[in-house]
This record gives sequence, C-alpha cells and structure tokens, in this order.
Amino acid sequence: MADFDLMRQLQNKNTTKIVQMVMDGLGGLPQQAMGEHQGKTELEAAATPNLDALAARSQLGLAVPVAPGVTPGSGPAHLSLFGYDPLKYDIGRGVLEALGIGFELQPDDVAARGNFCTVDDEGLITDRRAGRIPTEFNEKLVALLREVELSGIRTFVETVKEYRFVLVLRPTMGQTLHANIADTDPQRLGVPPLPAEAQDEESLATAQLANQWIGAAREILKDHHPANSLNLRGFAKDPGLPRFPEVFGLRSAAIATYPMYKGVARLVGMDVLPVHGEAVEDEVEALRAHWDHYDYFFFHVKKTDSAGEDGDFQRKVDVIAHVDEAVVPAILELEPDVLIVTGDHSTPAALRSHSWHPVPTLLWSRYCRPDGVATFGERACGRGSLGTFPATDELPLALGHALRLGKYGA
Amino acid sequence: MADFDLMRQLQNKNTTKIVQMVMDGLGGLPQQAMGEHQGKTELEAAATPNLDALAARSQLGLAVPVAPGVTPGSGPAHLSLFGYDPLKYDIGRGVLEALGIGFELQPDDVAARGNFCTVDDEGLITDRRAGRIPTEFNEKLVALLREVELSGIRTFVETVKEYRFVLVLRPTMGQTLHANIADTDPQRLGVPPLPAEAQDEESLATAQLANQWIGAAREILKDHHPANSLNLRGFAKDPGLPRFPEVFGLRSAAIATYPMYKGVARLVGMDVLPVHGEAVEDEVEALRAHWDHYDYFFFHVKKTDSAGEDGDFQRKVDVIAHVDEAVVPAILELEPDVLIVTGDHSTPAALRSHSWHPVPTLLWSRYCRPDGVATFGERACGRGSLGTFPATDELPLALGHALRLGKYGA
Repeated sequence: MADFDLMRQLQNKNTTKIVQMVMDGLGGLPQQAMGEHQGKTELEAAATPNLDALAARSQLGLAVPVAPGVTPGSGPAHLSLFGYDPLKYDIGRGVLEALGIGFELQPDDVAARGNFCTVDDEGLITDRRAGRIPTEFNEKLVALLREVELSGIRTFVETVKEYRFVLVLRPTMGQTLHANIADTDPQRLGVPPLPAEAQDEESLATAQLANQWIGAAREILKDHHPANSLNLRGFAKDPGLPRFPEVFGLRSAAIATYPMYKGVARLVGMDVLPVHGEAVEDEVEALRAHWDHYDYFFFHVKKTDSAGEDGDFQRKVDVIAHVDEAVVPAILELEPDVLIVTGDHSTPAALRSHSWHPVPTLLWSRYCRPDGVATFGERACGRGSLGTFPATDELPLALGHALRLGKYGA
Repeated sequence: MADFDLMRQLQNKNTTKIVQMVMDGLGGLPQQAMGEHQGKTELEAAATPNLDALAARSQLGLAVPVAPGVTPGSGPAHLSLFGYDPLKYDIGRGVLEALGIGFELQPDDVAARGNFCTVDDEGLITDRRAGRIPTEFNEKLVALLREVELSGIRTFVETVKEYRFVLVLRPTMGQTLHANIADTDPQRLGVPPLPAEAQDEESLATAQLANQWIGAAREILKDHHPANSLNLRGFAKDPGLPRFPEVFGLRSAAIATYPMYKGVARLVGMDVLPVHGEAVEDEVEALRAHWDHYDYFFFHVKKTDSAGEDGDFQRKVDVIAHVDEAVVPAILELEPDVLIVTGDHSTPAALRSHSWHPVPTLLWSRYCRPDGVATFGERACGRGSLGTFPATDELPLALGHALRLGKYGA
C-alpha cells in the first residue's frame, strides 16, 4: 500500500490536476462464440480510438486490487485505488450497506444490515430471506419499524431491496456506541435467531439497545408472514480512515452517480460533487464545473460493471465505447497533468460477477515513458511497463507524475 | 528488501565474481525536439553496441529505488541497490553531508550540516543562506571556526560549498554522544535562530555541547556580514548498518570517484578502492588491479547524473556511449560470473533533477534466461522478464546467479 507517513512527509503543493477515471468492473475475459469478437475481452472488442491514442502516449499495466487470486467487493476495491490497503483498512458490512443506499452516516453511528426472515410457531427460522419479499412489501414493513423507539437513541430504518434493510443507531445524548457485536443470524434453518451478543466489554450497552430494538421490531412483524421476524448482521461504525486529502495533500473530489461509491469517497474525506443526472455526460459536466477547485478527481463510471454482472458482453462493449467517445476527449480537453484510466476490479461478462483478474490500467502524464503500444486492452496492459502492480500504487505514482512528491533523503 | 537473515543462512562461499555497475541517474525521458533523438530517452539515443549485445544475452527490467512515485536522494538510492530498504535504514542528513565531502566519519561522531546565515542587529534572520557567499569566503570563515574548543570533544569544521559546511563532534574521553537534536534553523525569516534542542533525555549533553559551540562560533562570525551567524541541521550519527560483506558473504569493494558514493559504501562495510584519476578508465584500472581480491565490485559512474542534472541530453548520451565503449568490454574481459548494469535512480535531462522513474537494469550470468531483446533502453527494460522490481532485489538475484545461495528447505 501507499506509505501514508512517507506521502505526508514528501507531499508538495502545486497547481497540477490529477484525474483517476475508474470504469467499474473494467477488466473482462474473452468469450466463446462471439463472432467478430472471438477471443477478445470486452475492452479489446470495444471501439476505443481515443483510449488507444492515449495508450500510445502512456504507460500500461495490470492493477491487482486486493491480492493475487482474490475477488474484491466494491468497498475494498475502491479503497485500494485510493491507496489504502483493503486488508488493513476494513469498512464493516453495516457501514457499506448504509453507504450503498446513500445514507449519510455520522462518525458516532452504528449501522447493521437487516434481513427479514420467516420463523415458525416455535420461533425457529424456516427461511432466512423471507421468501425474497418484493421491495414494496419491505418498504411497508420498514415504515412500521420506524415506530420503534429507544431511549437516548435516534434510530433509522431504511429499505435496501427485497428482504434487506439497514438499521442505524445514532446516540443523541453524547454517549458512545460500540459495534463489536455478533450477528443474530445463525446461518441455518430450524433454530431460533441468536441474541445480539457483545464481543467485548464496551459493546455491552449497544448490544442491549440492539436487543431492545429487535424485541420490539419482532413484536411488530409477528403477523406479517413471511416477513414475520428479522436478523441483524455486520454491526459496524465509520472506521475513521486516514483522510485522503491530508495524506496525499490533495483537494479531492468524487464524481459518481451510485451511492456506494460516493459513500466510500466520503468515508476517506473526499468532497462528493453534485451530478445532475445519471449519464456519464452529466458526470463530465460536474468535472468541468468544479475543475478549478480541486487537485484530484475520482471519476466513477458504473455501467461497465452492471453490464458485466448481467453477463451482457455486447452491452459492456458498448458502454466502454461510449465512455471512449463521451468522456475521454472531454477530460483531455481540460488538460489534466496526470490521467489514470483504470477499474476497481474485473467483471467479465463470462462470469457475471466480480472476479480476481487484474485490471487494465493506463497512466498518462507529460513525464511518463510511453510504452509505445497503441491499444488499450488486457493483453496490451499485460506487456506494459507498469507491470502487474498493486492498485494501491496508483496514487503514489500519480503524485510522482504530478511533481507532488519531494525527494526522499539527500 | 533483501531478507538479511535468509541471506546469512543460505550464503555459499565460492570463487564467483559479481560486478554491479551503477550509472548514476541512468534512467531518462524522451525529450521534445531532439532531432534524430525524437521520442528517445538518453539511453535509447546513445550508441551502445556493447550493452545492446550484452542485453541480447541478458534479462532486463526496471528497478524501483524506494517506492513507486518516490524520487530518491543518492544515499537512499544506493542503500537500495545494496539490498537495504531505504525506508527502514536511514542515513541522517549530517552524516550524508560529511560523506559527501569525503570526511571519514567514525562510529562515535555526531555530524551536522551547517549553514551560514545573515542576522540583523536584533539577531533576527534576514537571509538563511547568507547571500550564497562564495566558497572561498566560506573557507576563510571555516578556518576561524576551527578555533572553537569544547572540553573533551574534538571538533571538525569542513567547507562544503557556498554557505554550507559540516560540523563533526568527536568524543575524546570515551563519552557517548547522541544526535536526537532538533535543527536550529527556524526555516523562516524575521525570527532568531533556535537553540539546539535535545529531542530525548540522552541527547541533552550533546545538545549542550552544540549550543556551546554555536555560541562561540556566532561570536567569531558577528562582524563577518553577510555570514554573521549560522544554523545547524540534521544532527546524525553513523546508523550502524548491517555489514554488507557479512550479510551477503562477499568480499566487497567499491570503485567510485565521488566522495558521497565512497562514503555510503564505507558505511555498509565495503572496502573503498583507490582510484588514480577521475575518469572511468581509471576506475576500470582499479577494477583490474583488485580483481583477484574481491567477490563483489560496486562500480560507480558519476557523469550520467551530472549531465542529467545540467539538463544536457546530448552530454548524457555521450557519457553513456563512452561507458559502453570504455567500460563494458573491459569488464567483460575480466569474465565476471554475474554482471548487473543499473542506475541508482533516474535523472532525466528533461527534468534536470533526480526523478521517481524506475531504472533500466540488465542482469547477465551464464544461468540467466535471456529475454532476447537486443537493445538496452527504458522501453526494452519495460518489457523485460525482471519486470518492474524493487532495486533491493538486485543483490539476492546476483547471489543466486553466482550460485552463492544454498537451497531453502529440503
């Protein structure tokens, strides 16, 4: 990972601009029987004249998000791109779930993932996901659960989707909550839910509050079969991550349309810029509008990942081609000093899921040594001079190329 | 970094010879408008038939001196080439400054960098560099400062250049000095110099000695405007580094013409060989003369870096071509078992300074797997099978290729 003390020690302030464009799930795999795309990955198959021209002036490589062979979730994958070792800095599941729905978590909050479930007359679990109830039913139940009151605590209950919701406990009287609390979900059928059990002394009071809430909530749910009970999992607090702007000495802004990515950026202390719409063109507009006020921009593109998750090779190809046309020239027009094009992880359509494959990455600056490979794709990046490298190196490299790191030692 | 315990455990003695040729600041950047050199780095532009032929039989790669994006000073960069993690092993500034002028520091000495400065009638600093006085004036002042006496301490005051000098305190009565002492330079104007303040209990006595010396020295300087005061910075002692010959099991010799590099080699315990002249041919002569008596030679070429620092692309090209002609065949004639050609860092003429770019590196032994690339340059190395690798790996690799490391485990 980036050596944060070293970054703090060496950081230079100047007027350079860094853009890190993250195409979510960018990396792919060749797919069988794709006709004209035979043997090519999504990125290789896409028409990307602008990225190819940029690649010819850039250094290429393959970024490893977490560790070789390890498939990352979105939270860890983004931490890594921001220079944080995701094996060292852990964002708890409850916090990630809250971020994923755009909940503005405060540092003292405790968040947990909630699952509606089905229990029988004896209170034994018969379906851990309550028959995957429709989201509308979830919303109705959540409205009821908001009635539960705890002394000295403000509670938030928010629908995620189907059987999933988020519970947030916020202290209102200056007390400190602690989140080292075990899941109530026994992870099997035919047994009752567990109590919320504190895993250390200081979490005892919070576990008691959680159990009070669970008791009242189950009372409310008992006649709402199949969602006649619930479990809480992944109790967590804001992990208090080192502040990205302070570590790297960058006025830092995030441009994203999905809550999860805005949330992770907010957790590390970036400003999240308003984007007026869901399209990449709207994100470009936000970049232009705020160009003068920041040194670093995290620019997130979601739809590459969505297409990969849907197993839709051609749609992913089309998204990449659209980014090449609608985003890349617009960013270059702003004349950044360093431009990185990368992804948080691979999402090959062939796998319909995140994968462990390292991620094609391009770094351009006027001080880079171009590899002289005039195409941006997995194979080209596999031969690039950045090599197969930890994604956590991207920020230190960007700072170097932006002349923002002083000399180490004399 | 090299795992020193592992190296100690596995080291085999045999009669093989290893040469690590370090062209200082070797790595470069393409420069605009260079006519025939358009788009080429200094190394790529240089005529290097001997290195190219060697490259065809070698493995290539790019060495990272300290960390991605981080520009190293000469001290840390050389430690790294010698297998020492420069983020773990720190040579203090005072020690580096003393080494840089060829001062033979002893283990009990405390060294500090000194700056002459200008103060006004109220003792407030008006120029931290005393108007960059000429070196001759510095030498005159240093002669005066040598008169200052401290009880039980031998003091050395040595000119560096312009406003810079070195102060060394050497205990003469068996006492131990400590160097955890803050700089006296407040790093801004309009305030008086700070006292030399101990940062821990055990440095109190040494700080007191420093303050005595400073008081007497300022009294001597007070009528020598603009150098009418001084500051001391970077108090440091020999860091007591692990001994290179013992760690790697190598009778080790350094061949260099500049004091800094001899000094760092001496700090890790290498023998510094006499070189009768400043030219690379003189260094080759020293290599020949001592060939039979050592297992490992650190062979340093300075002028690549000097040309880069001067921003002189063509001169750097010429130096490289000269080394190719005058040094490479001469080394090969001696039939080393392992030859590494590398640099301590990059010094692109385009930047006129050290830079963070990884360093083109070639490893030849009769047991290497040649990459089959018949050119030695940044791009060729970017595609090489050594990859982009930590410079601290060079020594362990050299030992392996010299059959000097036994099997690990059964």
